[in-house]
This record gives sequence, C-alpha cells and structure tokens, in this order.
Amino acid sequence: MDERQRTRRPGGRSARVGAQVHQAVTALISERGYGHFTVGEVAARAGVADSSIYRRWGSLEDLLSEVALARLNAQSPMPDTGSLSGDLHTYAANVAREITGPDGLALVRLAVALTGTGTGQQDRLGRQARDSLRDERTRQLQSMLDRAVERGEKAPAPLDVLDHVLAPMYIRVLFGMELTPGYVDGLVDRLL
Amino acid sequence: MDERQRTRRPGGRSARVGAQVHQAVTALISERGYGHFTVGEVAARAGVADSSIYRRWGSLEDLLSEVALARLNAQSPMPDTGSLSGDLHTYAANVAREITGPDGLALVRLAVALTGTGTGQQDRLGRQARDSLRDERTRQLQSMLDRAVERGEKAPAPLDVLDHVLAPMYIRVLFGMELTPGYVDGLVDRLL
Repeated sequence: MDERQRTRRPGGRSARVGAQVHQAVTALISERGYGHFTVGEVAARAGVADSSIYRRWGSLEDLLSEVALARLNAQSPMPDTGSLSGDLHTYAANVAREITGPDGLALVRLAVALTGTGTGQQDRLGRQARDSLRDERTRQLQSMLDRAVERGEKAPAPLDVLDHVLAPMYIRVLFGMELTPGYVDGLVDRLL
Repeated sequence: MDERQRTRRPGGRSARVGAQVHQAVTALISERGYGHFTVGEVAARAGVADSSIYRRWGSLEDLLSEVALARLNAQSPMPDTGSLSGDLHTYAANVAREITGPDGLALVRLAVALTGTGTGQQDRLGRQARDSLRDERTRQLQSMLDRAVERGEKAPAPLDVLDHVLAPMYIRVLFGMELTPGYVDGLVDRLL
C-alpha cells in the first residue's frame, strides 16, 4: 500500500494519533525517565487531549506498556523460519542485538518502574500493565513454539525460553558483560 | 564480643562512621531513589564531612556499590554446608527469599542506575562500581565452588550459576512471577 492509500484508509486518524502519542512517550522517557512525567505532559507533547489518552489507553501505565510492546514487536519480532532451532536462534540473536544497543535496558527500566511495592491504585495499575506486557509476549512466544509442535518438533515451554535464554542475556547486559554470538547460540543449543 | 568491647576496639570510630554512612545511603535510596541525592546529602544525613566520604569511598557510585555488597553479604551470604548441592540449594533459597521480600529489586535498581550509557566521568564511575560489585560477588561464588572441587566434587562455573540459577529468579521477580521452593530447587538440580 502506498502512502496515499495509507493516509486515506479508515482509522487513519486513529493510527496517526497513536503514532504521535507513542513518539511523545518515547521522547519523555528518554528525557526524564519513567515516573517523571504525567498523562497531561504526554498529551501536550502529542498535541491531543488528555481525555483521548485516558479513553484509549486507560492509564499512563497501560500506555507505557503498549509503547514497550510495540518496540519489542518491531525490534525482536517472533521469527518463522520453518524450524524451531532456526526460530529460537534468530529470536535470541535479535534480542541480543536489541539489548546491547543504545538503551538496551529499556524493558528492564520499564519493569522496574512499573513494579511498585505499594498497595495504592497507581502501584496496582503498574503491576497490571507489567503483567499484561509479559503475558502478551508469552503468548507470542507460545505461538512460535506451537508452530514447532504442529510440525512435529519437540518444543520447550515459553517459561523455559525465558529462564534459560532470555534471562541470562538480560542479566549479563545488566551487569556489563558482553554477549558474543557464540554465547547466545550456546544458550539456545543448551535449551534444545 | 559484647557491646563494650566492640565500641572500644581499634577502628571503632571508623566502623561507626561506616555504619552511619551506610544507613544514610539506605535511607536516601528508599526516600528518593538512585540518582536523586548527592554525596553532600549523604554526608549531612550521616553527620560527617563530605571529604571523609570522598577520601574513604572515592565516589558516590563506589559507596552505593559497597552498600549493596554489604546488604548482599548480610542477606545472601555464601553457605558452607559441606556439599555443593547443599551450598547451591541454600544459596538459591536465600537469594529467592531476599528478592521476593520488600524492595527485592534493590540490586536490579542499583545496576540500572549505575549503567549509564554516556561517556562522561559519572557514567564511567557508575559502570566501574557496577563491575566491581559483580566481580566481588563472582569471587565469593567462585570460592564456594572451589571448596566443592577441593572436596572432589564436579562444580559448574560461577557464570553458569548466574545464567541458570540467579538470572531466571531475578527476571521472574522483575516480571511479577512467583518463586516457589520447588521451582528454585529445580533450577539448582537442573544445573547440577
């Protein structure tokens, strides 16, 4: 579809507002960090009304989670290479590239920011948004693993991939260790 | 040693200052979060001169890292049970208890705060402090594993413990998942 068609399609305005709001959130996170801006500031930056944001996203926490999910889906989409080994190696390599890049700790920062320990409404909303982000990525990973099972391959559970492929990579980056391609491939091979 | 002896021993003043400074740092982290207080504020809270802090700790980053290490050593010390399996199960259970408790994400928060992506002096100091904290804990873990080898047991490398026991627990807590004793024991059993 060319640009003219894209801007004409029904829902074009909604998509444009979505993009503006996502862009505003990304800019505010990078300038101030999580927890240091409000829905009103996102709305002002995006040129929309506060009420549009609340109506569409419900809360700042849900908006933050959606922006993070969009980033993950764009930068580490679930591959479909035709084999489980190919899918997991590709996925792990994409995640490794993403988390060793500029602001590679974005997802960890978000999870920390959303994980309040209090019992108030904002802390509850934060934990809910974190959980729904986690659940959505788990569903995507499950689909990739289901395709393997449908092809007759033996697949691990999504949480095994989290525990033994994703978690080590995240913790190594968090503590300043290098991720070599050999190391990343080794994590996948060990799991398979 | 009773309280009277403790306060009389050589180095008693230095130990007292150390404790006051650690307490001040812990309080400021909990009130304001990392990155939102200065050496001057730590000094004022602890009732010592700024210069004493710089002389003893070098930088705020090194002080933060020392406080975190002291907390880790107090709350998840390396066990010495007489067997590798006993040591690793005990260690993993201690870490699990610690990171599921109040402010269990303290170490993750610190690592995120110390991992600046810039090239300025403060970012460099932060990364150095993070690396020296990691290296010190790795040395402690290595000693525990060395004891197993001396007893004739076959031990994993410290980074295998990090990758396949510690990392999954941290990532699960970060994303709001429960750590059951069975799960934690299973991680250790799988590694051994």
